[in-house]
Amino acid sequence: MYSFDSDNVVGAHPAVLQALIDCNSGKAAAYGQDEQTRQLQTRLNEVFEREVWFFLVPTGTAANGLALGAMSTSYSTITCHRKAHIITTECGAPEFYSSGARLILLEGEYQKFSTSALQSSLKEQASGSVHHLTPAAVSLTQASECGVCYQVSELEDIAEATHRFGAKLHMDGARFSNALDRLGVTPAEMTWKAGVDCLSLGSTKNRTLNAEAIIVFDRVIAEKARFLHKRAGHLFSKMRFMSAQLNAYLKNDLWMHNVKAANEAAQTVRAALSKLDGVKFAHPTDINEIFAHVSQKYAPALAKAGVNLRPWPSARGDLHRLVLSFEDDHQYDPFRNLLHWIASHSETAERQSL
Amino acid sequence: MYSFDSDNVVGAHPAVLQALIDCNSGKAAAYGQDEQTRQLQTRLNEVFEREVWFFLVPTGTAANGLALGAMSTSYSTITCHRKAHIITTECGAPEFYSSGARLILLEGEYQKFSTSALQSSLKEQASGSVHHLTPAAVSLTQASECGVCYQVSELEDIAEATHRFGAKLHMDGARFSNALDRLGVTPAEMTWKAGVDCLSLGSTKNRTLNAEAIIVFDRVIAEKARFLHKRAGHLFSKMRFMSAQLNAYLKNDLWMHNVKAANEAAQTVRAALSKLDGVKFAHPTDINEIFAHVSQKYAPALAKAGVNLRPWPSARGDLHRLVLSFEDDHQYDPFRNLLHWIASHSETAERQSL
Amino acid sequence: MYSFDSDNVVGAHPAVLQALIDCNSGKAAAYGQDEQTRQLQTRLNEVFEREVWFFLVPTGTAANGLALGAMSTSYSTITCHRKAHIITTECGAPEFYSSGARLILLEGEYQKFSTSALQSSLKEQASGSVHHLTPAAVSLTQASECGVCYQVSELEDIAEATHRFGAKLHMDGARFSNALDRLGVTPAEMTWKAGVDCLSLGSTKNRTLNAEAIIVFDRVIAEKARFLHKRAGHLFSKMRFMSAQLNAYLKNDLWMHNVKAANEAAQTVRAALSKLDGVKFAHPTDINEIFAHVSQKYAPALAKAGVNLRPWPSARGDLHRLVLSFEDDHQYDPFRNLLHWIASHSETAERQSL
Amino acid sequence: MYSFDSDNVVGAHPAVLQALIDCNSGKAAAYGQDEQTRQLQTRLNEVFEREVWFFLVPTGTAANGLALGAMSTSYSTITCHRKAHIITTECGAPEFYSSGARLILLEGEYQKFSTSALQSSLKEQASGSVHHLTPAAVSLTQASECGVCYQVSELEDIAEATHRFGAKLHMDGARFSNALDRLGVTPAEMTWKAGVDCLSLGSTKNRTLNAEAIIVFDRVIAEKARFLHKRAGHLFSKMRFMSAQLNAYLKNDLWMHNVKAANEAAQTVRAALSKLDGVKFAHPTDINEIFAHVSQKYAPALAKAGVNLRPWPSARGDLHRLVLSFEDDHQYDPFRNLLHWIASHSETAERQSL
Repeated sequence: MYSFDSDNVVGAHPAVLQALIDCNSGKAAAYGQDEQTRQLQTRLNEVFEREVWFFLVPTGTAANGLALGAMSTSYSTITCHRKAHIITTECGAPEFYSSGARLILLEGEYQKFSTSALQSSLKEQASGSVHHLTPAAVSLTQASECGVCYQVSELEDIAEATHRFGAKLHMDGARFSNALDRLGVTPAEMTWKAGVDCLSLGSTKNRTLNAEAIIVFDRVIAEKARFLHKRAGHLFSKMRFMSAQLNAYLKNDLWMHNVKAANEAAQTVRAALSKLDGVKFAHPTDINEIFAHVSQKYAPALAKAGVNLRPWPSARGDLHRLVLSFEDDHQYDPFRNLLHWIASHSETAERQSL
Repeated sequence: MYSFDSDNVVGAHPAVLQALIDCNSGKAAAYGQDEQTRQLQTRLNEVFEREVWFFLVPTGTAANGLALGAMSTSYSTITCHRKAHIITTECGAPEFYSSGARLILLEGEYQKFSTSALQSSLKEQASGSVHHLTPAAVSLTQASECGVCYQVSELEDIAEATHRFGAKLHMDGARFSNALDRLGVTPAEMTWKAGVDCLSLGSTKNRTLNAEAIIVFDRVIAEKARFLHKRAGHLFSKMRFMSAQLNAYLKNDLWMHNVKAANEAAQTVRAALSKLDGVKFAHPTDINEIFAHVSQKYAPALAKAGVNLRPWPSARGDLHRLVLSFEDDHQYDPFRNLLHWIASHSETAERQSL
Repeated sequence: MYSFDSDNVVGAHPAVLQALIDCNSGKAAAYGQDEQTRQLQTRLNEVFEREVWFFLVPTGTAANGLALGAMSTSYSTITCHRKAHIITTECGAPEFYSSGARLILLEGEYQKFSTSALQSSLKEQASGSVHHLTPAAVSLTQASECGVCYQVSELEDIAEATHRFGAKLHMDGARFSNALDRLGVTPAEMTWKAGVDCLSLGSTKNRTLNAEAIIVFDRVIAEKARFLHKRAGHLFSKMRFMSAQLNAYLKNDLWMHNVKAANEAAQTVRAALSKLDGVKFAHPTDINEIFAHVSQKYAPALAKAGVNLRPWPSARGDLHRLVLSFEDDHQYDPFRNLLHWIASHSETAERQSL
Repeated sequence: MYSFDSDNVVGAHPAVLQALIDCNSGKAAAYGQDEQTRQLQTRLNEVFEREVWFFLVPTGTAANGLALGAMSTSYSTITCHRKAHIITTECGAPEFYSSGARLILLEGEYQKFSTSALQSSLKEQASGSVHHLTPAAVSLTQASECGVCYQVSELEDIAEATHRFGAKLHMDGARFSNALDRLGVTPAEMTWKAGVDCLSLGSTKNRTLNAEAIIVFDRVIAEKARFLHKRAGHLFSKMRFMSAQLNAYLKNDLWMHNVKAANEAAQTVRAALSKLDGVKFAHPTDINEIFAHVSQKYAPALAKAGVNLRPWPSARGDLHRLVLSFEDDHQYDPFRNLLHWIASHSETAERQSL
């Protein structure tokens, strides 16, 4: 039974698997000197409309930790929202990669922090005194951990404040493509043109096997990241198999196609859910995640209908997170079952209330 | 043109790719709660004839660094041969994962250290004084970096000395299966039964995509490794794709089949080379690596025959490293070309000398 | 002009200086094998009514950082009040000494955290999941950063909760002796008998030159601390000069004598201040620190009277921190001047209000 | 009985103690904002004939570790002689302060390395490859651990090679003043004018209590050292007591006076020893340390004469290290006893051989 639990539970896109098969024959130079990796460099430069540095890693935790390690020193701070994935569920990766930097936590609605909250924190941090750590990095998640996007103008303001205090800006793009689709902007507009210095470009949740990329827009960060990347054991010998995944992912805008379908599915489910009595949305639904309080009374009927909607373990009470992910036929059972059940249930309810 | 450069340049075995395709359909729980990972646990317990802990990582550097980090403290030492891969080409991964342990280097023929060299070093290290670092780990490479195996009795002696001084024993098994084939012993006999506490089990060189496993035989190491594994970003969300590779690798002894072929090919090439005037072997050839001084005078003729034999960049002068890797038809061109060229050349030479 | 700024601005007690002179003649074994250090071991065992381990360091930051580093791992947490000195003004020493542990911050009145706040945090932290850091240490400051004491029963409850979740309890005793005097309990009762595992025993603020001690009640912490102590460069070669300071400090209860005078002076000043219109106390005054909002209108008159009362830089607005420290004649000018000025001013005010 | 064991066993110079007493009265701003520290800045600028940055620390291990941490990154190397104090007896302080840099060891006579050995090592290290660590620092000890000095021209050559490979040069000056006296050059000539970027200026061995200084000639190193200094707990609150020691030490060239006496005493003892049958010098005697093989047959007679000459624990066999340290009357018993005993013994031997 499908549970809408996470986009991590879905397999790889067939085109990604095919790319692995296609690049397998023959020999290829190790450690990124291969043709697939050269192609990926070209493609990433196109996608971001400039020369970029990139580092492939197997997980989002590696991407974030390594990026932030390359942006900071051991005696510095990394400022983020107090619900940021880097603080809640990455087992201290930023501290590990930075050899002991400190995360400074900001509040903010929809798990986004505001420019003014950031400014106020950076101002306090940047005393220049040796008794205090120096701000080195700011990290935001686009879309945020509850699925809400920063507008480009917000990104610009945040970047301006970050740079004013001598720090650099990191974007955790675990759902970067979802946000691109939502905002209708280009990758360049949502990153370096807005002032982002380094990006964790998620693709695993969007149907590669296990491939994420750190995209760097700043030479100093790139130079340090090169060594941390190898040192932490993330420099793949058979790099072609990593690059091939991303080449397939970016080819013909497969990535945007996947995510558009997932985002749309979320809107469809939200619209349906809103008809149900006892459902209250906790956040706007910008991308493929719906956060809603769903009365427990529906649980037995949903289960019977083949839909496993479980309260979100990270929260308390009846808050549910429904993550929609892309499947090729778009008609996979749980999705269809859920919509069908809601439709029939709300009709019944309507009829009963007449 | 094939260069016998490294086993990292070969692709994945078709059975490994097929396993990825087979496990792709449907959804699977993330972070190792999936069926493939459960099967792998069962299979590894069988292979090692006991309950083991294991951690999948994408590279040998990650395996070694993480294993050694879990075995040591920041104020301890890791003793190894001065030519060990962990010191020569892993960019300080052991220091990174241990937050600053020190590598202590031993000499020894064939890039193996002797028990007596180890004992003497550990005795000097283990002063108990706070002015000195405490021995925490000893790391050996099986087969060694120049392709020579430790005998099981040597492993037992080394383990005994290691444990006597309060340290634990790590085996870098980048070519573990090659050594198994050579020695004709079981995985258990070559590891925990001989006193090894933790193993980096290489499989990438032996035709997985990018998958290595840390096999732990000691609960304390395993408990620390769990956290370092996640913290460094090596806990894959879609773990099934990692486990599936290793399941295919270990199924029906595919791993031993691959490596037997590669080891045999090395013997064939060595026998052929030994007929050439101006060839001098630097080391015994226990596994799939041949280290030989080959006169530069052969270079033009070899190139013309379609064989690219280049001096080994890590060495100086005319030392060549020839790595043989397994290809399905076993008749791939460079291998055939090399044997053919040697045969015709040595005949000519023989005739000329009559 | 004296400013009541900090107890760090006062010199050493004459008895402490005399001890340096007394121990200077002749030669003494280095690194703590000397007679002064042996005497100190004996004296500390007496003071704490049990065998203790101790490590001398030159600053409170070193004491706290090193103690917490010895109590934690790189993938663990240290829980403390969000105003704890270890987080606000020690430049990340705990992260440094632990190679990257994370500080978890609690709220609480008077810069003390409650047992229930601690329990709730530890419960959330101790998920056992590799996605989360493991609680290793809890650190409280006695007296707290705003000069308020934890009662012994509170310490016991905190220690019980700490140990229940597998963590160990650290006490930052920058003003340990002040708290002892206030609570009227013994060093043993306020530490290990209540469940404290490790203590930073401050003495610099209480008139040694630059000497602090880490007192350890747990063998495992002590064993790790030994090495961190040397490794960080805190193992003094001429240890006799450190031990002699603490011997003088503890001899004939000089430490308690000093602090009793300082605590009493604070009560005298508080009583006087309370008569002033426009003075509002921010916290109780348990020890030698008074936190009070003092109207700026008094500033010119105070300055004229030779008393420099400045708003506290760490706070905002008109909050003043007055730190009373012990001087031999107890009649040093600023103290007398302040009392005298308040007396005359409040009389005037009283007369005017008639 | 005096043992010539180490200069760490001697007390402080009376002028240093007097300076502590003199600066004790009144209040002084904390953390280096005091008058003594300002005077020290002025004095150090004079001594080194330029503006310098300085950081006071309590031990030589702290000085070296902190200096090297500020000069390197976690993914870099520090190259030194394999007998350097930083590798043999500082419990991994450089690794700690650098969060995991690696020490690369050079051979060389008299525990000095040659420029050519250094060049060859740096050339091999500086591959630019991510598989290898990058050279960040070179550290030499002046005078070397066996008491032999680098000539200024040697320092210049070493500095040139160091800088050519992008690294910076550290001098461990535990016996800096002894070397100055020996070479007859100025502090500037032996440091920054020769290309040294950072100096550990020892003074504890030369009769301060526990005070060492890191002298920095490079802004980038100084900026990083500021934070490491506080973070490691070496920023003294009552800094005046540290600065006062160094002010007394440098005043009227007390430091050079002390060391001249000690160096001369070593020459006197060496000359006497050379008359003894069965004495063989292991190294030249440039400063206050004599390394000599002394036959065990003399032990009983020496002991009877009140001289405790013990074989050096760090070596094997009959190698003795005799450290001469300055005492005010220069007539302290062990020194006189030793000379007297040698004189009478060698006379006897001479007579017997007639």
